[in-house]
Amino acid sequence: MAAAASNSDRDVVTAGVAVIGNEILSGSVQDENIAYIARGLNDIGIRLREVRVVPDVHQEIADAVNALRAKYDYVFTTGGIGPTHDDITAEAIGLAFDRKVEYHPEAFRRLEEFYAQRGQEFTESRKRMTLAPEGAELVNNEVMIAPGLKIDNVFVLAGVPRIAHAMFEAAKSHLHGGSVIQSRSITTNLAEGDLAAALEAIQNKYPESDLGSYPFYHTPRGSGVKLVARATDTDLLTKIGDEIRTMIAQLGGDVLEDDRSW
Amino acid sequence: MAAAASNSDRDVVTAGVAVIGNEILSGSVQDENIAYIARGLNDIGIRLREVRVVPDVHQEIADAVNALRAKYDYVFTTGGIGPTHDDITAEAIGLAFDRKVEYHPEAFRRLEEFYAQRGQEFTESRKRMTLAPEGAELVNNEVMIAPGLKIDNVFVLAGVPRIAHAMFEAAKSHLHGGSVIQSRSITTNLAEGDLAAALEAIQNKYPESDLGSYPFYHTPRGSGVKLVARATDTDLLTKIGDEIRTMIAQLGGDVLEDDRSW
Repeated sequence: MAAAASNSDRDVVTAGVAVIGNEILSGSVQDENIAYIARGLNDIGIRLREVRVVPDVHQEIADAVNALRAKYDYVFTTGGIGPTHDDITAEAIGLAFDRKVEYHPEAFRRLEEFYAQRGQEFTESRKRMTLAPEGAELVNNEVMIAPGLKIDNVFVLAGVPRIAHAMFEAAKSHLHGGSVIQSRSITTNLAEGDLAAALEAIQNKYPESDLGSYPFYHTPRGSGVKLVARATDTDLLTKIGDEIRTMIAQLGGDVLEDDRSW
Repeated sequence: MAAAASNSDRDVVTAGVAVIGNEILSGSVQDENIAYIARGLNDIGIRLREVRVVPDVHQEIADAVNALRAKYDYVFTTGGIGPTHDDITAEAIGLAFDRKVEYHPEAFRRLEEFYAQRGQEFTESRKRMTLAPEGAELVNNEVMIAPGLKIDNVFVLAGVPRIAHAMFEAAKSHLHGGSVIQSRSITTNLAEGDLAAALEAIQNKYPESDLGSYPFYHTPRGSGVKLVARATDTDLLTKIGDEIRTMIAQLGGDVLEDDRSW
């Protein structure tokens, strides 16, 4: 619903992420890709609207990717593109798109050459890293010889953070962003419950900005709240930020920090 | 689909998590709750099968919660239960369950007393923290006077990690787990591509275990791969782990680590 609304605004470009990995769902690995992709998209004017974390199961991956690619302009998957039996993302994306999955000729050629140069065997397992749905383009990257993939609006990235980040940077050349959301973040020592009403009045006055309130407790600088205004218009954010500062002063609080993204 | 299959096995108890928060989707905050909840569920024999991260939009939250509660035995939401205008989880859950949302009498009484004792005003905003769908139970916790909520199989937790974790610990008394999945993790300096075929043979021999392969590169101990076998049967894991060690030796690799969860 949000997607339908946002896509009617041609300047709003949206994305979804599918994180593929039993290791995230078992809690044995902390995800380090969502925030990286979120910030990177934000920088080029693309709004991450939804993330799904799914297990290493073909149909679950295909269902998540199909749900996300129908709703958003771009989809990124992370994980499951290595040489082992649990690396099933290419096959699952083939299932999602109902396309045959085969060795990608150019990827195959590159990996064959790479392992020959190193004197390592180009095993059947390593050949798996060249599997791609028919018609997929390669997303080259500076860290690994094995490429990511682009199939229509879906980008298939690695799970290992350093490789995922490099592939995401490479994918950026394929992306067309909209207007960039900027933010102004003001931190105060006031309690949320004491500023909530005045903050809501500011939010209601400026519906074109998104005002978030993030409390913190018992940190080295005590307790308080970080107020984040987000909008594409920096003049607007300057005005909103100044009203937030006035509000804090009127309520007897202090401004501990005032950061702008622009 | 996985849920239908797993629920037919009465010993398999499943869960989904809905992370509610624009701050996660914008990349300004790194989630610290998914892995905590995942590990905590795993410890009591509940398998986290899916996570969805959704924005602070009533219908998006309701849709995610309804999708997850239909598929899994338990659902946990994190975020959006404070006193400010962007804290809309209680209302969104009411929408999901089609139930009226009102001040919860017991929560209201507790917060009223709490703020009176501290000489702080019990503002309209603070009263919002007692909003709950009709029939909700309170999930008390040791960190905050404001409680989490339980509505049928859905647990509503805070977003701030310290509070979310305390509420999750409190929610545990309501949960009935199944058999606990144990794991054996063996780390080797071999490359994934060199062990993938032999590893797949072990996976095929023991389909009742889930064998994962997680490579690492350029760490202080070099590059290699962590192999994780997961199953409920520790005798089985002992056997699989020993076969993995034999495989590593046969391929000329070293075992760098061998950890058991039991």
